[in-house]
Amino acid sequence: MGSLSEAVTQVLIPVCALVGIGFALIQWFLVSKVRVSNDTGSNGYSDRLIEEAEAEEGVDSLEVTIKCAEIQTAISVGATSFLFTQYKYLSVFVGVFSAIIFLFLGSVKGFSTKSEPCTYNKGNICKPALANALFTTIAFLLGAFTSTLSGFLGMKIATYANARTTLEARKGVGKAFIAAFRSGAVMGFLLAANGLLVLYVSINLFKLYYGDDWEGLYESITGYGLGGSSMALFGRVGGGIYTKAADVGADLVGKVERNIPEDDPRNPAVIADNVGDNVGDIAGMGSDLFGSYAESSCAALFVASISSFGIGHDYTAMSYPLIISSMGIVVCLITTIFATDLFEIKSVSEIEPSLKRQLIISTVLMTAGIAMVSFFALPSEFTLFNFGTEMTVKHWHIFFCVAIGLWAGLVIGYTTEYYTSNAYSPVRDVADSCRTGAATNVIFGLALGYKSVIIPIFAIAVSIYVSFSLAAMYGIAVAALGMLSTIATGLAIDAYGPISDNAGGIAEMAGMSHKIRETTDALDAAGNTTAAIGKGFAIGSAALVSLALFGAYVSRAGIKTVDVLTPKVFIGLIVGAMLPYWFSAMTMKSVGKAALKMVEEVRRQFNTIPGLMEGRAKPDYATCVKISTDASLREMIPPGALVLLTPLIAGTFFGVETLAGVLAGSLVSGVQVAISASNTGGAWDNAKKYIEAGVSEHAKSLGPKGSDAHKAAVIGDTVGDPLKDTSGPSLNILIKLMAVESLVFAPFFATHGGLLFKFL
Amino acid sequence: MGSLSEAVTQVLIPVCALVGIGFALIQWFLVSKVRVSNDTGSNGYSDRLIEEAEAEEGVDSLEVTIKCAEIQTAISVGATSFLFTQYKYLSVFVGVFSAIIFLFLGSVKGFSTKSEPCTYNKGNICKPALANALFTTIAFLLGAFTSTLSGFLGMKIATYANARTTLEARKGVGKAFIAAFRSGAVMGFLLAANGLLVLYVSINLFKLYYGDDWEGLYESITGYGLGGSSMALFGRVGGGIYTKAADVGADLVGKVERNIPEDDPRNPAVIADNVGDNVGDIAGMGSDLFGSYAESSCAALFVASISSFGIGHDYTAMSYPLIISSMGIVVCLITTIFATDLFEIKSVSEIEPSLKRQLIISTVLMTAGIAMVSFFALPSEFTLFNFGTEMTVKHWHIFFCVAIGLWAGLVIGYTTEYYTSNAYSPVRDVADSCRTGAATNVIFGLALGYKSVIIPIFAIAVSIYVSFSLAAMYGIAVAALGMLSTIATGLAIDAYGPISDNAGGIAEMAGMSHKIRETTDALDAAGNTTAAIGKGFAIGSAALVSLALFGAYVSRAGIKTVDVLTPKVFIGLIVGAMLPYWFSAMTMKSVGKAALKMVEEVRRQFNTIPGLMEGRAKPDYATCVKISTDASLREMIPPGALVLLTPLIAGTFFGVETLAGVLAGSLVSGVQVAISASNTGGAWDNAKKYIEAGVSEHAKSLGPKGSDAHKAAVIGDTVGDPLKDTSGPSLNILIKLMAVESLVFAPFFATHGGLLFKFL
Repeated sequence: MGSLSEAVTQVLIPVCALVGIGFALIQWFLVSKVRVSNDTGSNGYSDRLIEEAEAEEGVDSLEVTIKCAEIQTAISVGATSFLFTQYKYLSVFVGVFSAIIFLFLGSVKGFSTKSEPCTYNKGNICKPALANALFTTIAFLLGAFTSTLSGFLGMKIATYANARTTLEARKGVGKAFIAAFRSGAVMGFLLAANGLLVLYVSINLFKLYYGDDWEGLYESITGYGLGGSSMALFGRVGGGIYTKAADVGADLVGKVERNIPEDDPRNPAVIADNVGDNVGDIAGMGSDLFGSYAESSCAALFVASISSFGIGHDYTAMSYPLIISSMGIVVCLITTIFATDLFEIKSVSEIEPSLKRQLIISTVLMTAGIAMVSFFALPSEFTLFNFGTEMTVKHWHIFFCVAIGLWAGLVIGYTTEYYTSNAYSPVRDVADSCRTGAATNVIFGLALGYKSVIIPIFAIAVSIYVSFSLAAMYGIAVAALGMLSTIATGLAIDAYGPISDNAGGIAEMAGMSHKIRETTDALDAAGNTTAAIGKGFAIGSAALVSLALFGAYVSRAGIKTVDVLTPKVFIGLIVGAMLPYWFSAMTMKSVGKAALKMVEEVRRQFNTIPGLMEGRAKPDYATCVKISTDASLREMIPPGALVLLTPLIAGTFFGVETLAGVLAGSLVSGVQVAISASNTGGAWDNAKKYIEAGVSEHAKSLGPKGSDAHKAAVIGDTVGDPLKDTSGPSLNILIKLMAVESLVFAPFFATHGGLLFKFL
Repeated sequence: MGSLSEAVTQVLIPVCALVGIGFALIQWFLVSKVRVSNDTGSNGYSDRLIEEAEAEEGVDSLEVTIKCAEIQTAISVGATSFLFTQYKYLSVFVGVFSAIIFLFLGSVKGFSTKSEPCTYNKGNICKPALANALFTTIAFLLGAFTSTLSGFLGMKIATYANARTTLEARKGVGKAFIAAFRSGAVMGFLLAANGLLVLYVSINLFKLYYGDDWEGLYESITGYGLGGSSMALFGRVGGGIYTKAADVGADLVGKVERNIPEDDPRNPAVIADNVGDNVGDIAGMGSDLFGSYAESSCAALFVASISSFGIGHDYTAMSYPLIISSMGIVVCLITTIFATDLFEIKSVSEIEPSLKRQLIISTVLMTAGIAMVSFFALPSEFTLFNFGTEMTVKHWHIFFCVAIGLWAGLVIGYTTEYYTSNAYSPVRDVADSCRTGAATNVIFGLALGYKSVIIPIFAIAVSIYVSFSLAAMYGIAVAALGMLSTIATGLAIDAYGPISDNAGGIAEMAGMSHKIRETTDALDAAGNTTAAIGKGFAIGSAALVSLALFGAYVSRAGIKTVDVLTPKVFIGLIVGAMLPYWFSAMTMKSVGKAALKMVEEVRRQFNTIPGLMEGRAKPDYATCVKISTDASLREMIPPGALVLLTPLIAGTFFGVETLAGVLAGSLVSGVQVAISASNTGGAWDNAKKYIEAGVSEHAKSLGPKGSDAHKAAVIGDTVGDPLKDTSGPSLNILIKLMAVESLVFAPFFATHGGLLFKFL
């Protein structure tokens, strides 16, 4: 047994969660000091106004501030209304799926209410299957709720912060950076702390019923991960289609045909575009990373429950995954202070290094944190269950597993940065290829995306090999947790991107000076890279999480080997490897179709509304918002159904082995498609920004805006939009969600599955 | 034992091969009756000239014919000179690799010359490992030679046929079709018959030494497959880079910047482009399909050698794979007569149906052929070795295995046709998306490619499941053979494409009338579809072949299970799934870089050669040919090294299990990338042709040539070029070659492999 007592653990976890929430609220308060209302009340707003007026001379600051407030409100209202509409649809799904979970799992033992002997904890009596069905359903609902909340809060914070970032940009790049980064941190800490707190509370409440039946307890907790990820799927896909339909539609008519700048208020799709950033990149991503976090915790807890300390009821050791997350919150808190208080950004060129520093600081500190937690919370030696055999593990083995996951995350992050930032040669080569037109740009971009897969895959492979060898599936699960332990910082730098993007949009729409737009563009270029880094983390952790869930599924379904040399497994493998393509085809076609509609509507408005181009008439923003909303809600259903039905169909008709093949296939194939899609898109976006910014001789020779090379770059950027913001990031949910769903339904498949082969 | 005696088998196989060669020669003779020289000798040329002059009035036929002959000579000389340069480099590779094979395999038993007891055929004495090393090396050399010969002969035939097709186009579409199709058939029959004959002769010669040691005999014969496929790799990659560098470069300056038609003689890259069609699409593809054929035969023979009839020395049953191929030649011969003599093409719209009919006729006839061969050649019941266990198999099981492979090929062919022909909605949707520019075209095209993967994967999965269940790895091997049994017809309709493409180029360069160009364009559009179908076959059969080779490798390396739940296998799986991306990144970047150079050279010539645009001066074709040649020879090395070194490194350092994972991973992932890349490219090409041809109201609303939609379509077509002709088709060689290489080196890896893990 480790040296940390149960009582201390019971206090430590909730305290860390509450500290995280408190810290988030402080950051929020600091952001809120930037005022965007025209209320000149008691809060010293008038004083600040004078200060701001000094920063940008000759512009009526009050008018600008009011305009920013108006635009911010429009975006916030649009995003809120979309999310509520989406939630209305999703509540139907949640209801139906809850019923399926309850019925399928209840049927395992024919809805019997009789307690049965435990599987692993020999001699003990476990709760009936019906209770597990009920509690899994409850955990599912809790996961779905927390996921939705994470996304919604993220969106609220982002729409609260965007205009504030714009206004701060008038005072210089440093202030704007801090406003955007603090807002990102609010989201990061709220999400990490919330996820931890809800999980902690749920486990303790479930324990009231389960008592000593930890097998059943942690089996039913897996529903939490399923709930989190299934909401994330719809959030990412729906949000991704929404934002990219608007973005592609707006760019194709505005930038390419009408030659007006991005985010120009005359463009009817501009509000939909900015709303989209918040519902797709923010709310969708929040749900996604929450899902990863919930799943890796659930996988680790489930595997631990059948270890020697699980069977021996060592509460502190069992809670190891939660203590790691608690430590993560503390580490990220210290890391954030480095960015907001200890270093100051003075020029545009310092933005990216500062964000990268965040990654290093959090990783180094967290390594020490993991060592502490591992030595104090875990017994120095214990036994793990490894697919039928047992293995003896020491606490420093587990330290290595978590640490290698954490550092693999850093490697993935840095590789992503190298391939998507326009400070390095890969993106510059892509920009250079625009000289000969859009075709070479697309060819070079695709090649870049394919190439960017190599190092992350080796990093993932090494983490898998080391953690698998040291501690079997528990090792994989905690490696995933290690990669996600600094999630608060990861999310902060990730959310920072769309906030800066929106800030730029607001500056343009409010008619602020060119200088402001340049500042926000620089923030945004760094944001593209951090968004790609965030996606890299999301994909890397998804790979590890899925593998851990896969292992848990295999244990729970009672499979001893998943042998590629059996036809059942092999056909699963090859069909599983196909699913990411099917899924991407659906989402990309959806974006394409919706974008075509958006283009027609935007063209129609430019052609029929007199004075629109001259800025004398206002466009009809609402119709464009409606097109995005309708497309998103309609088109998220088929890909969602593909992901959710595949495990059910494979498990029920083809059995547990084929399903194991499907999971392995979709995992190894999906990771590649996801990484290459995200990085290709990020690289194209930054190649375009590189030409626009013209910071070097080389960049100047390609530009300026409107040159042939720039036009070619815009085409690449547009192609990249659905890749990087719709299909790419949704794919990591695909692989995680299929794995967690299989885990939850494993008892059903093991009992009733494989109908087709039984029949033949 | 089957009812076919050994003596009959010994006669039947070579006779069928000779019939195939004879039929090819007859077709060649028929094609050669179209004269393209200005020799007015005794062969009635003058009479024909009068006939031709009637067909196209007002054009000086003699002058045109002379011009065609000149261009044909230029293309033929260019292609021959490139291939010879390439072969010079490859001979170095072959020498080095032969030494590696001999040394690695010789070292298995420490270069001992002592005979040892057999592994499977208990009680018998087998030849020493050193003899196997020597004969494997010889088989490798034979395979490499036959593969090279197949590619070279294909190229010779195609360059012989292209101008003849152009001239025949003056007499109507039917005549031109027959000229192109007959030439394709020459290549198809020569290749199929040659491959069979060399294999047959080699086996009989090897038997002189091996005598009753059939294990050693068929083990060393696997070198034939390795030789075939390693040449194919360089042929496909080198040829692919050559042709696409020229094609992309020519299009980007000619079509996009200078607004001159495709294949315009003023374009300096035009000869390189046409040479490229012959070295890439013809010679590369010939080597590729020969490789598939050789490998599937070797895999089937190797697995059969350790079956009950192999151990019992039933020669006819052992030769089943060769008898199937012999039957294939006869069936394809009958099928060809349907196209060339029984039906006549009267209009453009009949071309595609006629080619599709070829697929159906050959499949239906072959099904009957397989049934005959299975019932006469195989014992009615026998025992197969299935990874440590034995299974009893009946001859009609094997019939089902071969037949399902054959029909799966048809399904893949038809699906490919649906997704790449502009007669159906998928391509028309892509064409329609050009309305809103190149970006939506690219998005829709990528989505189409992803979607086109679904049905082929299910077809492959079903064939694998059925044949695996019925007859283990022998089932898979003969299913692959089934898919390739109609290879002569498959190659005929595949080679038809590039020949028509070249014919169109020659028509343009010779300044022939617009009507001729329309005819050749229609032939070419059908050719794009058949090329995609051919690639579909190549990929589908590659998947089955690789799996069969994988199974043979696993048997030979003595592995009992390939369990995904072991870290060694899983890291192999995920890294293997990454390899197709790494490989594609290399090849696409190579094409991109070479194309940039080509663009610069073409621009330079247009800018510096006075009177070039006006047609008064001749461009410098040779420099462009040199750029393509240099790029191709330099850039084929890294991807080649990746493919050839991966199994050696994985096997030597990580051991046989990790290598098994790598093979499975690259197989399930590579198939998807290859299919989607080929179909995306084919669809873009035909979307462009759809707009150009303007055959429907819809197509007319998008065109004509030079419209914005057409320009967008050209960009898509250009992006698709390296996807469909370089990276896509090379990928099926990647998966096959790694598998056959692992099979050949399996004894070495099993004895000396896994150094890294031994060391840790």
